[in-house]
Amino acid sequence: MLIQRLTIIGVGLIGGSLALSLKRKQACGEIIGCGRSVDNLQKAIELNIIDQYSTDLAQSVQNADMVMVAVPLSMMAQVFQTIEPHLSENTVITDGGSAKACVIEDARQYLGDKYPNFVAGHPIAGTEKSGAAAAFPELYDNRRVILTPTEETNPYAYDKVKKMWELAGANVVDMDIKTHDEVLAATSHVPHVLAYSLVDTLACMNEHVAIFENAAGGFRDFTRIASSNPKMWHDICLANRTAVLEVLAGFNKDLEILTKAIEQEDSETIMKVFTRAKAERDEFCG
Amino acid sequence: MLIQRLTIIGVGLIGGSLALSLKRKQACGEIIGCGRSVDNLQKAIELNIIDQYSTDLAQSVQNADMVMVAVPLSMMAQVFQTIEPHLSENTVITDGGSAKACVIEDARQYLGDKYPNFVAGHPIAGTEKSGAAAAFPELYDNRRVILTPTEETNPYAYDKVKKMWELAGANVVDMDIKTHDEVLAATSHVPHVLAYSLVDTLACMNEHVAIFENAAGGFRDFTRIASSNPKMWHDICLANRTAVLEVLAGFNKDLEILTKAIEQEDSETIMKVFTRAKAERDEFCG
Repeated sequence: MLIQRLTIIGVGLIGGSLALSLKRKQACGEIIGCGRSVDNLQKAIELNIIDQYSTDLAQSVQNADMVMVAVPLSMMAQVFQTIEPHLSENTVITDGGSAKACVIEDARQYLGDKYPNFVAGHPIAGTEKSGAAAAFPELYDNRRVILTPTEETNPYAYDKVKKMWELAGANVVDMDIKTHDEVLAATSHVPHVLAYSLVDTLACMNEHVAIFENAAGGFRDFTRIASSNPKMWHDICLANRTAVLEVLAGFNKDLEILTKAIEQEDSETIMKVFTRAKAERDEFCG
Repeated sequence: MLIQRLTIIGVGLIGGSLALSLKRKQACGEIIGCGRSVDNLQKAIELNIIDQYSTDLAQSVQNADMVMVAVPLSMMAQVFQTIEPHLSENTVITDGGSAKACVIEDARQYLGDKYPNFVAGHPIAGTEKSGAAAAFPELYDNRRVILTPTEETNPYAYDKVKKMWELAGANVVDMDIKTHDEVLAATSHVPHVLAYSLVDTLACMNEHVAIFENAAGGFRDFTRIASSNPKMWHDICLANRTAVLEVLAGFNKDLEILTKAIEQEDSETIMKVFTRAKAERDEFCG
């Protein structure tokens, strides 16, 4: 059995689905959930996601050989600081945060000499739902998990985290921290900012009821990510601020050119942008 | 039978699906397809979407009691002008264009004294696919079709078009032209502009391969509309330019405020926007 005792701190969509996907494969002896909401933890017990729970961080990691930290980015530092004295020498620690430079900085600072046992990770999977009730065992099937090990990372810890994600159904790839944060700003963080921003713009328009009543499937899909957890995405935007602002700046510059082209009925520019975008999307997502 | 002879000019997703949805209900005697691509028309015959075809506009509308014009907006004027002398006094004409002021202007100018038999319409349904092969009979089931009749509209023509769409499975609502164009700019045209623009921005970044390889479901949904037909959306952006530019201006102003909030780590503003957007979307699309 790969993991004897897995502690999941934050039993939501990400942490809960990891538990369910590993249970499918009998890859864990016991799974302990930890969080602040007793209601959510009890739900997780009912749904057979976890075997036990604790609302006490220190207690929850006792005797764990693997700790998955799946909390909003702004809480990582505090979690690391609180659990550090209670981790054994061999406890492997990983996380599911959507930005990596900030988490690695927190881990370095607060996990002390246990830092080499920390392997930063990011499963590229999710839905707009949150909480234990949103978890499902297939979430990671054939999805990508990015690990961003550093020079200090203990190879044993790296292998154990990699195997865990493979048993969960995912394909594991390595990436350097900076590339991860830039790529994710482009494909995930900025799209969320744009979706939230557009829905908010429309919500504040006079015709907002008529607008939403007449929205079709395209709008529903385009704005689905605006139903995501606001606190989680607030944290991501701030934690990955530099990369997010850089992509937003590039987007704004290009949108300004396109807007001017519409104003001036410049068909050539409009067609160039639309055609290039369609070709790129069809190639990668088609 | 509601329609003896239906001519569909432009047998793509919209026109083809109308034919299939009406055939399900045996609502038409005969369906004639018209278009420029013989390949597409032959495909439509094979798929049993239409019964006959012609590449000649004038010929295709002979003896038709209903003509559906489902061509890109930039081609409406020319189609109206060409078919007008060949329409009978009782032929009802409708369209499926995504902007209405421009189509009504074209119809008024080129349909002459047959203009009262024209009922402008817009089915709020579609996918990113195009061509006859993309058509399917359920496209309009429980979807909304907006009609924008004017003072001159012949009640007989209006009723026939309304009944046609109801037989096709849709719910028909009336709207004034200006409201239609503003609402659609907000829910459909501007989201397409933003999706095309973002995909193009990312396509031009150095890391574009890594970006698209690591895109998850959220990105796929957010950018689905960027796989739509570039020419069709070019036409829509220009035809509904005023409303599109107005919504874009509002969006840009709000995005600037949000960007500044991220820059300045102004959590209150970020949370306010994200929370309001999530609440609005959950209410209308939940």
